[in-house]
Amino acid sequence: MTGSAAFNLSAWSALHLAHVESALERWVRPDAATDAEGGAPVELMAAMRYAVLDGGKRLRPLLVLAASEAASGERPAAANTPEIALRAACAVELIHAYSLVHDDLPCMDNDVLRRGKATVHVKFGEASAMLAGDALQAMAFELLTPDDDAIPARQQAALCRLLARAAGSAGMAGGQAIDLASVGVALTERQLRQMHRLKTGALLQASVMMGAACGDVSAQAEAALMSYGAAIGLAFQVVDDMLDVTADSATLGKTAGKDADQDKPTFVSLLGLERAGVYAQELLAEALAALARSGLHDTQALQGLARRLVNRTC
Amino acid sequence: MTGSAAFNLSAWSALHLAHVESALERWVRPDAATDAEGGAPVELMAAMRYAVLDGGKRLRPLLVLAASEAASGERPAAANTPEIALRAACAVELIHAYSLVHDDLPCMDNDVLRRGKATVHVKFGEASAMLAGDALQAMAFELLTPDDDAIPARQQAALCRLLARAAGSAGMAGGQAIDLASVGVALTERQLRQMHRLKTGALLQASVMMGAACGDVSAQAEAALMSYGAAIGLAFQVVDDMLDVTADSATLGKTAGKDADQDKPTFVSLLGLERAGVYAQELLAEALAALARSGLHDTQALQGLARRLVNRTC
Repeated sequence: MTGSAAFNLSAWSALHLAHVESALERWVRPDAATDAEGGAPVELMAAMRYAVLDGGKRLRPLLVLAASEAASGERPAAANTPEIALRAACAVELIHAYSLVHDDLPCMDNDVLRRGKATVHVKFGEASAMLAGDALQAMAFELLTPDDDAIPARQQAALCRLLARAAGSAGMAGGQAIDLASVGVALTERQLRQMHRLKTGALLQASVMMGAACGDVSAQAEAALMSYGAAIGLAFQVVDDMLDVTADSATLGKTAGKDADQDKPTFVSLLGLERAGVYAQELLAEALAALARSGLHDTQALQGLARRLVNRTC
Repeated sequence: MTGSAAFNLSAWSALHLAHVESALERWVRPDAATDAEGGAPVELMAAMRYAVLDGGKRLRPLLVLAASEAASGERPAAANTPEIALRAACAVELIHAYSLVHDDLPCMDNDVLRRGKATVHVKFGEASAMLAGDALQAMAFELLTPDDDAIPARQQAALCRLLARAAGSAGMAGGQAIDLASVGVALTERQLRQMHRLKTGALLQASVMMGAACGDVSAQAEAALMSYGAAIGLAFQVVDDMLDVTADSATLGKTAGKDADQDKPTFVSLLGLERAGVYAQELLAEALAALARSGLHDTQALQGLARRLVNRTC
């Protein structure tokens, strides 16, 4: 373990969160050159910024940065976060943000509230919300491919490869499609896990693997990080389902009790609240065990994020 | 000029079109490995295939391949189309296809007919149509980044870079947003050109530049190809506007006369039909002049495609 002080997740998070927020604010804006020619339209960019700069917890960017540090074997001062890791972190968050915008649309989950604020389609209209989501997905890949020799092409390509697969039909979008098709259907636990593995797990796992791709990891470490990512990906959703029944809307920042209303199968409806909690803890243990066998030296941040994710109350 | 026979655009197109169709059919399908684990859901992939395998003219893929050949200095037999060029060609078409799916949605242009068939949202529902579009955009970047050392990372990154920018808020999605905001607004000719430059021009130009990126072009050639791409990008839309008033729905395969109905500014409403036709021919001349000064040796296909695009009747 590098450094002599005990690892402090709050301090680590606060530092990296500030860095990520600053980067998102800096990058999700009209390109100065294009804008002079009347490039990206004002309303579209406003909707994109509203969708991204929303006070989110930035779990995925933090996972990217934590994995990047574990992969590089050092924990730099936040100001030295390698640009490639910061771009990867922001790119993942753009994909996440775009998915929320589209998920909230009337033809999808039809939500008017998210993180305590009006959803993008309520504020800007459906058409702008849809385009904002589309543009955010493209921007994610733009962030990963700066025309800059400082970031090796091999890494740019690897990051695009990981993100495209995690976002697509065998990942996030595919999981969302399964979810749509599953309303009112009695899914087995295995089918529920599969749906979530795609819908939320793929992007969470990709966050970890993209962070790793910013450095250089052994095959052993890569496999362990895949397992870590898969475990926390699933744990995230188990906890999400638990919170849906235990928290109220104000705490959650989104409409609580929706799952039951929509007759959607969840880990709670399948396992009951207590067994779901036990399952989440088992997954946490799996995640930590994976880190322990990874051969990586500094996985404190990854450990901390896993614990925080599973033990959160909102 | 290589080869002794006069260049035959029809023969060239037919050969390359078959190759592109075959590639699209092969690539827009569930990944065999993922599918075994219950990956991409059946309905989503059906909607994606319906959106892509639709008998489109494949102008963008053909531009990619024509530019790729011009850049490499040789015209290979179709069977030898470099894989990288084929992937780039298909990726551009996926972005184009996804944009049509989203454009047809009720909250956007609300079209029920395209290329003579029911639009994706009519056939599969709005939610599936939206997700299919989202998944197609991700798939485009997946196609460009095979985990395969045969395609240099530098080129994979360059292709992603070009496509992301062309598809996003300073390109296609941005142009669509401007278009949305312009209904009932009296745009100047300059504003109309700017809107189209983004909405349709960016992706057409990117098709040319992505083809060039599959080879190795001088700065002179690159600049000339940019000019060619910009000219045909604009010409494409001028002709599109002309056809909207002159052709009927059956010929067009889409609802004719929509522009006037929707009070949308067009090159015809601004210039009149005759001047619009003259403008299109001027742009064609610009495109051909750009090719002439490119220094590239075999631009026959690019020339042919420009002529065909401007002189088309549907």
